[in-house]
Amino acid sequence: MGQRKRILICNDDGIDAAGINALAESLSEIADIFVIAPIDEQSAVGHAITMRTPVRARPWPFRYDHDRITAYAVSGTPADCIKIAVDKLMPQKPDLVVSGINHGPNAAVNVIYSGTVSAATEASILGVDSIAFSLCAWKDWDFDPAKVVARTVVERVLDEGLPPGVLLNVNIPAIPLTDIQGYQVTRQARSRWEEEFDERTDPFNETYYWLTGRFVNLDDGANTDLEAIESGFVSVTPIKHDLTAHGMLEDVSRRLQL
Amino acid sequence: MGQRKRILICNDDGIDAAGINALAESLSEIADIFVIAPIDEQSAVGHAITMRTPVRARPWPFRYDHDRITAYAVSGTPADCIKIAVDKLMPQKPDLVVSGINHGPNAAVNVIYSGTVSAATEASILGVDSIAFSLCAWKDWDFDPAKVVARTVVERVLDEGLPPGVLLNVNIPAIPLTDIQGYQVTRQARSRWEEEFDERTDPFNETYYWLTGRFVNLDDGANTDLEAIESGFVSVTPIKHDLTAHGMLEDVSRRLQL
Repeated sequence: MGQRKRILICNDDGIDAAGINALAESLSEIADIFVIAPIDEQSAVGHAITMRTPVRARPWPFRYDHDRITAYAVSGTPADCIKIAVDKLMPQKPDLVVSGINHGPNAAVNVIYSGTVSAATEASILGVDSIAFSLCAWKDWDFDPAKVVARTVVERVLDEGLPPGVLLNVNIPAIPLTDIQGYQVTRQARSRWEEEFDERTDPFNETYYWLTGRFVNLDDGANTDLEAIESGFVSVTPIKHDLTAHGMLEDVSRRLQL
Repeated sequence: MGQRKRILICNDDGIDAAGINALAESLSEIADIFVIAPIDEQSAVGHAITMRTPVRARPWPFRYDHDRITAYAVSGTPADCIKIAVDKLMPQKPDLVVSGINHGPNAAVNVIYSGTVSAATEASILGVDSIAFSLCAWKDWDFDPAKVVARTVVERVLDEGLPPGVLLNVNIPAIPLTDIQGYQVTRQARSRWEEEFDERTDPFNETYYWLTGRFVNLDDGANTDLEAIESGFVSVTPIKHDLTAHGMLEDVSRRLQL
């Protein structure tokens, strides 16, 4: 038997969220666990990093069994957590970074706004295999089925590795484990939010707006993350941090004639 | 002659930055301009959006010639600015969104942290053609050559359009216009930051950290954005908001056997 693997766990719901606790407890059976996560909720921060204010990190004495799990709370974004974990807080580089389990889905265009996914993306940039997990429910989260799914996927990735520059975005349907139909490797559905800013007047007679909107699935093609989840499958989408539209270089050259 | 086009301009350096002013002045000669940009600097916010606090937008009476340019300052991120511009502040959808001119380069892996690029990405998600412009200098910015480059690229995109789901990330070398060698359609260089958190002790004897680091170009292949800029070319990288690693679906299926 080799040395125990080191898994770094992060999220965007904050270090005290039920989802990250479920993930840490489940994975502590198979690896040494470092939970290094934001002290506060950081949903929808995307790939923000903190440059204009300092970052703090402190040992987190709550909730975790500290014989098995090392935990730090960080005053920053999910991407900050990964950076400071790897540079300062962990004795060695992790073998794997796992982000989540997010309280809510991160599929289709929402991947780009997700702090949970951005933690995994940051790991991938640093050359560490990584996986983001999200549970597709908006309330009444039951993380027990998702724990089993996460452990299965983590064990497979620890054994097989991922292609360079590729991370996994995993969305788990919120149904009993026995109802899950299996796994599908999918692509992001084409989609967007149709914004409807809710306009209000404050007590000082000034206008302000709340960002609200309606999610629109624009994709009726096969093999999307949304379709897999709706059909009761765990959706596994390989994503990458290189944003180049590699297939479009010639088309763009031809159009622009610059 | 058709109707004048409507261009929405945003950035992440804030509405009073010299770069956005240069862009607005230059493009107001060829289109109706709406400058809708963050009231404060928002560098490195990535694709963050504001959900937990309200957003405010107010007409911005400074700097711009308001016969030609309509300007609003927004208390939010670059992505917020695009969303509220399209939903609330503009009378019609823009024909093009232009972000920048950023004070500093946005090439290689930095694309993912850039608020300037995220404004253009948000436009692309909403189905509007978009371009991000950055001037590759860290100080002593002279935006005059970049203004000429930006106008050239904008006119070409207004005429030819972009492929669906593709936006342009344009980096302009900080050299005199006559020294610019031309345009190259490029891919993002593979690269990363090697973090070195600067550890300090505050007056209350607590540790805090500043995020610093060293940029490392890991790419010695052809046709990268970094190489083009260093060689005196304007780098034009087509990027996309769909993060799916389309070429890797089979590889990942084979590895994981889930």
